[in-house]
Amino acid sequence: MEDRTAFIDTAAALLGPRGFTRDADLMEPWLTDWRGRFTGAALALASPASTAEVAALVRLCGEHGVAIVPQGGNSGMCGGATPDDSGEAILLSLRRMNAIRSFDAAARQAVCEAGVILQTFHEAAETHGLRFPLTLGGKGSATIGGLISTNAGGTQVLRHGSMRAQVVGIEAVMADGSLFDSLTALKKDNRGFDLKQLLIGSEGTLGIVTAATLTLVPAIADRVVLWAGVRSLEAARALLLHCQAVAGDALEGFEVMAQTTLDDVVAHAPGARQPLAGKHAWHALIELVSDRAGADRLGALAEELLASAWEAGLVEDAVISSNEAQAEAFWLLRDEIAPAERAKGPAVQHDISVAVEQMPEFVEEAVPMLEAAWPGTEAVAFGHLGDGNVHFHVIAPPGVEARAWQEGDGKKISAQVYDLVTKWHGSISAEHGIGQLKRDELARLGDPVALGLMRAVKQALDPKGLLNPGKLVPLAREGANA
Amino acid sequence: MEDRTAFIDTAAALLGPRGFTRDADLMEPWLTDWRGRFTGAALALASPASTAEVAALVRLCGEHGVAIVPQGGNSGMCGGATPDDSGEAILLSLRRMNAIRSFDAAARQAVCEAGVILQTFHEAAETHGLRFPLTLGGKGSATIGGLISTNAGGTQVLRHGSMRAQVVGIEAVMADGSLFDSLTALKKDNRGFDLKQLLIGSEGTLGIVTAATLTLVPAIADRVVLWAGVRSLEAARALLLHCQAVAGDALEGFEVMAQTTLDDVVAHAPGARQPLAGKHAWHALIELVSDRAGADRLGALAEELLASAWEAGLVEDAVISSNEAQAEAFWLLRDEIAPAERAKGPAVQHDISVAVEQMPEFVEEAVPMLEAAWPGTEAVAFGHLGDGNVHFHVIAPPGVEARAWQEGDGKKISAQVYDLVTKWHGSISAEHGIGQLKRDELARLGDPVALGLMRAVKQALDPKGLLNPGKLVPLAREGANA
Repeated sequence: MEDRTAFIDTAAALLGPRGFTRDADLMEPWLTDWRGRFTGAALALASPASTAEVAALVRLCGEHGVAIVPQGGNSGMCGGATPDDSGEAILLSLRRMNAIRSFDAAARQAVCEAGVILQTFHEAAETHGLRFPLTLGGKGSATIGGLISTNAGGTQVLRHGSMRAQVVGIEAVMADGSLFDSLTALKKDNRGFDLKQLLIGSEGTLGIVTAATLTLVPAIADRVVLWAGVRSLEAARALLLHCQAVAGDALEGFEVMAQTTLDDVVAHAPGARQPLAGKHAWHALIELVSDRAGADRLGALAEELLASAWEAGLVEDAVISSNEAQAEAFWLLRDEIAPAERAKGPAVQHDISVAVEQMPEFVEEAVPMLEAAWPGTEAVAFGHLGDGNVHFHVIAPPGVEARAWQEGDGKKISAQVYDLVTKWHGSISAEHGIGQLKRDELARLGDPVALGLMRAVKQALDPKGLLNPGKLVPLAREGANA
Repeated sequence: MEDRTAFIDTAAALLGPRGFTRDADLMEPWLTDWRGRFTGAALALASPASTAEVAALVRLCGEHGVAIVPQGGNSGMCGGATPDDSGEAILLSLRRMNAIRSFDAAARQAVCEAGVILQTFHEAAETHGLRFPLTLGGKGSATIGGLISTNAGGTQVLRHGSMRAQVVGIEAVMADGSLFDSLTALKKDNRGFDLKQLLIGSEGTLGIVTAATLTLVPAIADRVVLWAGVRSLEAARALLLHCQAVAGDALEGFEVMAQTTLDDVVAHAPGARQPLAGKHAWHALIELVSDRAGADRLGALAEELLASAWEAGLVEDAVISSNEAQAEAFWLLRDEIAPAERAKGPAVQHDISVAVEQMPEFVEEAVPMLEAAWPGTEAVAFGHLGDGNVHFHVIAPPGVEARAWQEGDGKKISAQVYDLVTKWHGSISAEHGIGQLKRDELARLGDPVALGLMRAVKQALDPKGLLNPGKLVPLAREGANA
């Protein structure tokens, strides 16, 4: 305890009153993840204002053996930013580091500190006639640092890639407090291992991202949303390939849902309406966008796309949004899936991926298998077909007690889903990461070679194990459940 | 020696006569790099026919402490695939592993073994109406494995990215002989550190790439090449930005050269002609391409691009290729720069990069500085402006003895160029890698934090140091020149 007192006094002096607190009320909102699944405790909440302060704090933590849990907007899905309940770690918030250090509209690049909120960055890009092509539900709180640390996805990955694809430079504080400065955006740089790539998606277990150079793309000048009814998920996949061939880079999104899912949304969301007259086994939402260069021909492209899809027998029925309001109405049907499901009752949710070309077959195997194994449940698959990323939810039988079901049958169902996706050479985490939620499942199902390499890299870069302990990197076999 | 005999006998039995030889004549062509800068010796030449054979051999090498130098087409630029002269390492050729394991035209993906030659893969893609969007001078010998290990670049990086961007799955044998199998192409996979990214560009020092899943793009349906004369390199940069804004994704390449360079090419290459009537400080070659979706409007786009560039005062003169023969003639002027320079006399060549937006300023500082410091030399900068990648060559004064000059003043000039590019936060290796050629310079100029991280990762993944020793990873300070 003596030692902790010395650490606390030094850290408090280093960061000042705005940068360091042990006040329980101030810490409380940040000690539970936003979905309320994990709650921890912390020795203190540190909120450094600069990279130099982060580095000094990390060095101090190293000297005193104090663990560090980095946190951005606290909007992650896997508890990756919530400390354990020992109260021995400090919570390191990057939220005060929220400067856009530079914005070069001509080069289409900006240097953002880790604490910049995604929506703030979207707005900054807009004022320059540009856009940052990554968005997701939590954009009002998610930070650039958190998005990088989790390699976040979203609805624009089909065209633009995940967060990894947007990062052209990075600045991070490593476990020994040294500064890895690779912010300069070099489009080509072959000076050895790409350490930047290693940091992206490492959930703060290898280093603490303090800033990044990000790419921007031209603003959207026009968009058209198509809604198509198809006879099967395999037909949806054929339609996707057709869209890629005809629309090329204009294809920005391709989302799918089953008729039953659509019915739930229409029943639940005020103002939601069936976009097509009849029923179809599956529905696809297709977004085409263009920048200024191609805006004049987007409508024609949509018409051509639909006509050729008709001709090829790829759609049963389809409609093109006639204005922005209708485009929004189509997207509402996609965005309301999760709320509509929550209204139906408790569920277990899985963010999984398989190879795009195998997704139809996977869903057609998984849905009936799960529903048969767990009578009364309803399995729902929807999401980013273009990315092979299914949000696979299993809704509880009517009348069960939510918490008990989730902890009991729900966990068994999840294990079965992860077994299945692993059998298909897919991923138990497509875009949400591992955090503490899926660490044991990764230990159980991950390729032992890959897990061994991850442990070796972790040991090499954070030998004291002080960076976000208990997250992402599974312990070796004997301690996998520790 | 007893031990080596046991190793040799076991390896020979493992790989059979086609897979293992110590015949000096058979080994000789592969012990010198193609530019003739490095010559080494080897205990044996191993040419396994399968991933399982590679794995067994690597395990055997581990048991006997035998170093391994992996080699693809032996067309690298930095001696990364040439063993040292101890004769203690085995040369591990991947050339027999040359199967295209699968080709999925609908998914636009193929699984290639490491020894597939780039040109062979180009041809395979063509037969499916697709293309693999990476090409370079050595395509007739360069292999997929070598291209991945060096993260190769080329002339299509502006639009499509380096080799890293084409790799969606990887299979590699690690230092302990274990198999890292991540071939399944998951567009989204957030199960921890992206080990695939770590292997790409690691020059065989962390693992041996045996196969990869690669992306393909639609075949080019039409292309137009523009040639523009501009008043300065800064004006060329402004023209590049204009092209990006107007042409968007149709912009496939943007190469620059000075008038003096163009004059050398025209004087040297048979049939080469000045593309414009007058002289201009700098020239830009601009390639626009389209797939089937946009082919009908590429000509109009080129006209629009040129007209708007004229109007904005961005070009002094310009011409659009009227047919494929003229497009080829423009590219010939670019491709003949290196031969034209070689004809002028010995030179030292530097494959460097800076941030794109700083390239004009860098070149304008570097060229006169070098020429003033080394009277009689001529500094020539040309290449991929769109990537910030300059090929910066300094031609020797007339009459010097080539070898002596290269070893003496040439080395000092190179050090000065690398000092300068480091001062500009650029890279001493944009697309060629480090190998043995630049390892000492990387040790001298690399960020100590990045170098320390590289060493730690190397130690973690190859603790015995048997994978491609002496390449890429600089020794710690005291042994940097060892």
